[in-house]
Amino acid sequence: MTGAESLIRTLVVSGVEVCFANPGTTELQLVIALDRLETMRCILGMAESVVTGCADGYARMAGKPAMTLVHCGPGFANGIANVHNARRANTPMVNIVGDQATFHRPFDPPLTADTEGLARSVSHWVRTSSLASQVASDAAAAVQAAASPPGQIATLIVPGDVVWGEASGPALPLPMAPRPQVEQEVVRGAANILRSSEPTMMLLNGQALCEAGLAAAYRIAHATGAMLRGPTHVPRMARGRGRVPVDRIPYVVDTALQLFAGFKHVILVGAKPPVGFFAYPGKPSLMAPEGCAIHLLARPEQDAVAALQWLADEIGAPRIVPIEEEGPKPTIASGPFDSEAFGMTLAALLPENAIVCDDAVTSGRAVFPATFNAPPHDWIQSTGGAIGHGFPCATGAAVACPDRKVVCLQADGAGMYTLQALWTQAREKLDVVDVVFANRVYKILYGELRATGATPGRASDTLFDLGRPDLDWVGLARGMGVEAVRVESLETFADTFRAACGRRGPFLIEFWI
Amino acid sequence: MTGAESLIRTLVVSGVEVCFANPGTTELQLVIALDRLETMRCILGMAESVVTGCADGYARMAGKPAMTLVHCGPGFANGIANVHNARRANTPMVNIVGDQATFHRPFDPPLTADTEGLARSVSHWVRTSSLASQVASDAAAAVQAAASPPGQIATLIVPGDVVWGEASGPALPLPMAPRPQVEQEVVRGAANILRSSEPTMMLLNGQALCEAGLAAAYRIAHATGAMLRGPTHVPRMARGRGRVPVDRIPYVVDTALQLFAGFKHVILVGAKPPVGFFAYPGKPSLMAPEGCAIHLLARPEQDAVAALQWLADEIGAPRIVPIEEEGPKPTIASGPFDSEAFGMTLAALLPENAIVCDDAVTSGRAVFPATFNAPPHDWIQSTGGAIGHGFPCATGAAVACPDRKVVCLQADGAGMYTLQALWTQAREKLDVVDVVFANRVYKILYGELRATGATPGRASDTLFDLGRPDLDWVGLARGMGVEAVRVESLETFADTFRAACGRRGPFLIEFWI
Repeated sequence: MTGAESLIRTLVVSGVEVCFANPGTTELQLVIALDRLETMRCILGMAESVVTGCADGYARMAGKPAMTLVHCGPGFANGIANVHNARRANTPMVNIVGDQATFHRPFDPPLTADTEGLARSVSHWVRTSSLASQVASDAAAAVQAAASPPGQIATLIVPGDVVWGEASGPALPLPMAPRPQVEQEVVRGAANILRSSEPTMMLLNGQALCEAGLAAAYRIAHATGAMLRGPTHVPRMARGRGRVPVDRIPYVVDTALQLFAGFKHVILVGAKPPVGFFAYPGKPSLMAPEGCAIHLLARPEQDAVAALQWLADEIGAPRIVPIEEEGPKPTIASGPFDSEAFGMTLAALLPENAIVCDDAVTSGRAVFPATFNAPPHDWIQSTGGAIGHGFPCATGAAVACPDRKVVCLQADGAGMYTLQALWTQAREKLDVVDVVFANRVYKILYGELRATGATPGRASDTLFDLGRPDLDWVGLARGMGVEAVRVESLETFADTFRAACGRRGPFLIEFWI
Repeated sequence: MTGAESLIRTLVVSGVEVCFANPGTTELQLVIALDRLETMRCILGMAESVVTGCADGYARMAGKPAMTLVHCGPGFANGIANVHNARRANTPMVNIVGDQATFHRPFDPPLTADTEGLARSVSHWVRTSSLASQVASDAAAAVQAAASPPGQIATLIVPGDVVWGEASGPALPLPMAPRPQVEQEVVRGAANILRSSEPTMMLLNGQALCEAGLAAAYRIAHATGAMLRGPTHVPRMARGRGRVPVDRIPYVVDTALQLFAGFKHVILVGAKPPVGFFAYPGKPSLMAPEGCAIHLLARPEQDAVAALQWLADEIGAPRIVPIEEEGPKPTIASGPFDSEAFGMTLAALLPENAIVCDDAVTSGRAVFPATFNAPPHDWIQSTGGAIGHGFPCATGAAVACPDRKVVCLQADGAGMYTLQALWTQAREKLDVVDVVFANRVYKILYGELRATGATPGRASDTLFDLGRPDLDWVGLARGMGVEAVRVESLETFADTFRAACGRRGPFLIEFWI
């Protein structure tokens, strides 16, 4: 068999079931191998930014490595932004990238680029296969690397002649490393801090945001008065009625600084130290105040759930703590768009066990706390700040969880980056309701500009305003085969959203703000 | 003034008039500086792939460096594919990229990425400014680097604190290097080869494809019987009635090998040795046969026009050679789409002095030779093989040449990569007629697959077929404010194209194939 077939067969036996792809000529042998095998589900994205964003959403919800197949050099480059987002979410991802044949590359044909350099800039693990006979074991190593806790980006580059060469067969899957457990002294150290009664915040991320992690953290908070917080953008979080309501660190630096003021301790549980998204003149990088000690309970790759449960037991917290309701009651609001009222409306109508993919930027900030009392659901977000994450991520999540409704909350400016994902939703008949917040500006940039004390002028109006002409999202969606409707009030949104949730398949609601 | 203002002022005095941009928070100070100055025209692209593609088209037609302003890390990465295309066209381009403040970067905030590594992968010149007082001179150096013959990619990275810091003022423009002249012995050597009467091909690229270069090459060909050829994809070429008809090296390797068979000499004039776009088992990388000597008349950065004129004089070619007509007569054809018939129809209707931006991939291959006798025009193409070049390149060309009609020939698959550029055409009211060849497949990949002897299976049908559902380009264009019509025959195309050329502003014709 060809190196290509040995590679694809290895991925199949390693548990990879879906191939998100936009291949080119350098990946042709891999497509031929996929044709022969017929066991892998192939899903086309009409740009690599869609392909990698889909893979991110898929892996977060499937809980196992996602695979992409993309073209050399510029092809991979097109997908980097959403690989960056995946990297920041610790998403396990295997990228298979073709490249010029080894003997052809020295001639520097037009599409030749620094594929390995580009891959290295966003990957934890990069390898270029050099022998057809070893492509299979390289693929097994890539899956193993991707699955290494807490999840890594593994990029395997396969030159044309390496995949068309002769190989003996697939490689066996390599063992997956378990999450390391935390040390006893670390748990005891955290317990001592919590017993001190000094103001303490526990900052949760990654695995700690699953239902069991949050429940254990809640026991600790209940017993000690510690505050629980998640990161500004959550990779995946279990939420809704009956689950622990934990808010996030605010995006706006001044608000975040206020939140942390007075705390003496921050305990990191799968989280990194809290830092501002960007720097501002005269403002600190770290959100925790001077004199506040930062402690570590669990590193991102460690077993944060076991650590939290151990810590809860260590401090003698009760096993079961009834969860107190927080946040507003789900209610269908009326009138024009308002972020909080939208959230309450969404909470009232969200289907049980939905997946909310939130790339709503400014329009979505108040939606998170307003949905604490929605039916149980998972919340996933762009964690790397690269815009264009929502549509593809929702698409991939819907592939991973065909029995759950996916609701994509998408800012219009960010949505334009990867609107091609709507076509993939239509092609695959995915069960996604896309809500586009059409405020027709890069509102976040106007906010940042005004925060500097400057007044918008001609340049910023040109570069931040998305009107003149206004986008017609209904037309764009229909042009890609997705049914769509524009709404201008919360009550019309409610009716439309309810109807969209009552059917299967993709549907887009443009909320004209 | 701020470092940002000193940077923008330096670009202005260096002759930069247009800023193609999609900035973020790390570029805010630069936007504030643009607001203050009001002398630079800002043009928004709704994704960085659009921004860099516009800059490429602009610089090719304006004949001077184009500027982009894009966001750190993933923002720049989104634009890499079209920077790659620009690099392969020797387009002069200055990319200004913001980045995390120097003091903030060690905290590794979410959007932090290897901006410099990404920039280096596609740029000839990369610098990260480290002092506000030196940003201006860094900007002057970037413009100088970009303008260095034959044109380079210069990327200047400016951390947030560097641009908000205090600077004394703009820097003076740095001198532009002239194109080096070729040596006398090189010209004499080429003359000797041409006098040998052995079969010789002159391969022209870059500056040699301008009207004067082609005219000088034609004198040589007329006097010696040498064959003239351009590259498979031309960065910019002067064409049409009264100009020298020069065809390109075919894309398909077997056809290219046939063309070169029997040649004893290839003389490179601003061109690189002819190599296949991709490698294939058992096929050579170099298109010139064994025993064919490859000579150099002018390197890409040298003055190819002067070299050709000198060589023509050296061999005693007549000063003026009447140009013999080649190729078919422009005629309005009828019936369903056919690449050659389309080309003849286009040739019959193309406005005088138009710019044809050809990203039509398979649908466009026969259009080039069929338009030799169109009215005089320029032809520009994606030279790097990264798809998604047409719409943005046409957009930038129209900005550079507001008095010329731009005709964009766009394959549908490639067009989906950067369809957002249509919005920029609408926003800027650019005079572009976009023709989308809606064949609803990645036809080139089906061709490559069949050429291996394989039969398409389920995977390739999923990954190469763009139907199920079909895209509606009319809806997509209108959704971004561009008027559009679908045609299904050459005669309807002719009527629609004539009407579209008779008015100003963007218009899209979807040719349903």
